[in-house]
Amino acid sequence: MRSRTYELDRAHVFHSWSAQAELDPMVITEARGSRVWDEDGREYLDFSSQLVFTNLGHGHPRVVRAIQEQAARLCTVAPQHATAPRSEAARLIASLAPAGLEKVFFTNGGADANEHAIRMARLHTGRPKVLSAYRSYHGGTQTAVNVTGDQRRWPNDTGTAGVARFFGPFRYRSEFHAESDEQECERALAHLRRTIEAEGPGTIAAVILETIPGTAGIMPPPPGYLPGVRALCDRYGIVLILDEVMAGFGRAGAWFALDRYDVVPDLITFAKGVNSGYVPLGGVIISDAIAATFAHTPYPGGLTYSGHPLATAAAVATIEAMTDEGTVAHADRLGREVLGPGLRELAERHPIVGDVRGVGAFWAVELVAGPDTREPLPVAATLEVVAACKRAGLLPFTTANRLHLVPPCNLSDEDAAAGLAMLDKALSPGC
Amino acid sequence: MRSRTYELDRAHVFHSWSAQAELDPMVITEARGSRVWDEDGREYLDFSSQLVFTNLGHGHPRVVRAIQEQAARLCTVAPQHATAPRSEAARLIASLAPAGLEKVFFTNGGADANEHAIRMARLHTGRPKVLSAYRSYHGGTQTAVNVTGDQRRWPNDTGTAGVARFFGPFRYRSEFHAESDEQECERALAHLRRTIEAEGPGTIAAVILETIPGTAGIMPPPPGYLPGVRALCDRYGIVLILDEVMAGFGRAGAWFALDRYDVVPDLITFAKGVNSGYVPLGGVIISDAIAATFAHTPYPGGLTYSGHPLATAAAVATIEAMTDEGTVAHADRLGREVLGPGLRELAERHPIVGDVRGVGAFWAVELVAGPDTREPLPVAATLEVVAACKRAGLLPFTTANRLHLVPPCNLSDEDAAAGLAMLDKALSPGC
Ligand SMILES: Cc1ncc(COP(=O)(O)O)c(C=O)c1O
Ligand SMILES: Cc1ncc(COP(=O)(O)O)c(C=O)c1O
Repeated sequence: MRSRTYELDRAHVFHSWSAQAELDPMVITEARGSRVWDEDGREYLDFSSQLVFTNLGHGHPRVVRAIQEQAARLCTVAPQHATAPRSEAARLIASLAPAGLEKVFFTNGGADANEHAIRMARLHTGRPKVLSAYRSYHGGTQTAVNVTGDQRRWPNDTGTAGVARFFGPFRYRSEFHAESDEQECERALAHLRRTIEAEGPGTIAAVILETIPGTAGIMPPPPGYLPGVRALCDRYGIVLILDEVMAGFGRAGAWFALDRYDVVPDLITFAKGVNSGYVPLGGVIISDAIAATFAHTPYPGGLTYSGHPLATAAAVATIEAMTDEGTVAHADRLGREVLGPGLRELAERHPIVGDVRGVGAFWAVELVAGPDTREPLPVAATLEVVAACKRAGLLPFTTANRLHLVPPCNLSDEDAAAGLAMLDKALSPGC
Repeated sequence: MRSRTYELDRAHVFHSWSAQAELDPMVITEARGSRVWDEDGREYLDFSSQLVFTNLGHGHPRVVRAIQEQAARLCTVAPQHATAPRSEAARLIASLAPAGLEKVFFTNGGADANEHAIRMARLHTGRPKVLSAYRSYHGGTQTAVNVTGDQRRWPNDTGTAGVARFFGPFRYRSEFHAESDEQECERALAHLRRTIEAEGPGTIAAVILETIPGTAGIMPPPPGYLPGVRALCDRYGIVLILDEVMAGFGRAGAWFALDRYDVVPDLITFAKGVNSGYVPLGGVIISDAIAATFAHTPYPGGLTYSGHPLATAAAVATIEAMTDEGTVAHADRLGREVLGPGLRELAERHPIVGDVRGVGAFWAVELVAGPDTREPLPVAATLEVVAACKRAGLLPFTTANRLHLVPPCNLSDEDAAAGLAMLDKALSPGC
């Protein structure tokens, strides 16, 4: 006998990205800080941040209180009316972005943020096409999944025109036969320039990139790459959209991952960490030039819950809490001093670990069949490692042949060490 | 000097569907039941339900409490995990839908609900095209705005293939030169059949229709229309999607507007009233046949906040409150006994009112330059009427040459009478 929650889920809930008859969801009944509990009372250290969004962990009292107070005061209004939490959230978010990006369009999540950013770019430039990276994920609605590079796009690759894709830099599995990071960067930029030239520079509205590709494998680009992309965009009058949905709001040990690079985009999309996912919220931060395009021409897009009071009140509390608690600097140090060194040390001892990449609270461990061939560990074997992690009490984010270690940004050093020890155990043969 | 909320809004908030420099948003500071207050303390009777979504009015204590309690317990988990509020919300929502639609896919709002419904239809049938009505609104993301018929689609009408449009029945401005409702119905069905034949029946995945078109003008279809559409869909193996985002959850004096017609669709999309918009939520209710398509083949779509605990907890409380308080039957009676007769009586005395249409808490008043020509009242003159409504203390929903009177479904008879009196005053020349 399973619980009523489980039975009703199987009877009535249709799940994302899944074969519905082949699911066995875990029932989560409780969550606090960096830990969650299932219905059997088993405790897990949450190194997934769910889908990489609880950047403040679970049940942060300040954010919970802000939601409760806003719910009592004013749950919801239509987007054409102004409210205090939306105004303040927009001010705070714009203040974190580079100068010259001052306006915020709020959406419900990451996919619609990217949909609207792409629309803004198309209308601003009057051009139809968008270029995106094969190693990327940008969301599940039609345009968002069509700029997505990974295989989730394939069954959806109809009905949308005007997207071309290219390869980004990724030294561990280089598309460019590069022998150094500098060469990888240079060749990736040459490849993008050739793709632009071959697609027709005057037809391209935007290049969209995750600042640090996330689900595709957490691959911080070499330092020169994004400035090089910016220069190409400038040369050809192309809008640069940086998707910070996963990498933003502390995840990469910076408010925005782009702070780590010498680059200013025209549009930034965000969601997830902006309020730790406590209430659905996403958005687009807009450059003054693009905002000006819609000063006297109506922007032809919108949604019922744009700037929802409850969601934006949670964002205000989240940003204030992260500021007061120094969460961003903590995540940066955690990456440099604890998670990075710890994971690299595991890689030395476990030949199944082919590569370790990341920054802040944003780490990927790539599992391989052999360290020399770099052949990805088969899915079944990867799932065995994931199962071993769970038995050890650790909840990682997992995709393809990778474990992503993406805990809350305010994870304590002790919990980081505990999680690394659990991972060590799970990686040990026969565990 | 304007308030800080106003100034920050103008400096940092990018608004839906607007020319950003030409806005003058009202600042809403408080809302309770069927009333809202602006920052100058002016009180308005809310006959807009904001964007037609606060079906339980503002600050309903039971829903507010459910949000506060869920926030304290468990704000958010990833969609692959099961939680009590999502399971219960899915059960309740499926129980309100016709038999044979048992699974619910949760989204953040109406646009993504329609995006996913269309994807399900395309993959279920293996066909590319979607047919939709010119008089319709289905949302702001790319596919949703492309199946939308109204002029908000025009600037976005690029980048998406596979949508064809047709005219639905609308007696007051008949496309079919009809002389009776029966004739309008018959001719509208013949027109749809011809469109299907001319587009190629074997290429059409879905017909998407608002059960009662909302923003396009609140036009309840003649009784035979939807059963006729169902028969055409059956004949050609086409999926019927009914969009209940605006018309559902009590708005039309029924749980779903489709309950008023003898029709069972394959997919129902919902949002708004499902939790009175207190937390962003939408979704798709799925027929057993379509769910079976994704039993062993993964559904290629998803989103981070699918079935968000806070949003689904608000839905559970909303549906329970509406059930216990008899909100749906109340809205039905309000339409039959108070709003309908009251608006028709106003139409008799005010020649500016060309037509009154609706049901439940879902009414449109069409303003005309002359009752005989039915020429739409120009926008400027319509906006004067809207301004007069506001001066009288009434907040209507307004679009084109129409006022939509769409109050909370639990509006009291006294407030309904008060609102009608305010409208009477606003319609009086020189008011
Ligand atoms: C980089 C990136 N962009 C966009 C999205 C889509 O966000 P959502 O699931 O909220 O639509 C995601 C989700 O994981 C993401 O990681
Ligand atoms: C019938 C209908 N469908 C879809 C939508 C889109 O919903 P959302 O604004 O939540 O995306 C709306 C919004 O008004 C609607 O009225």
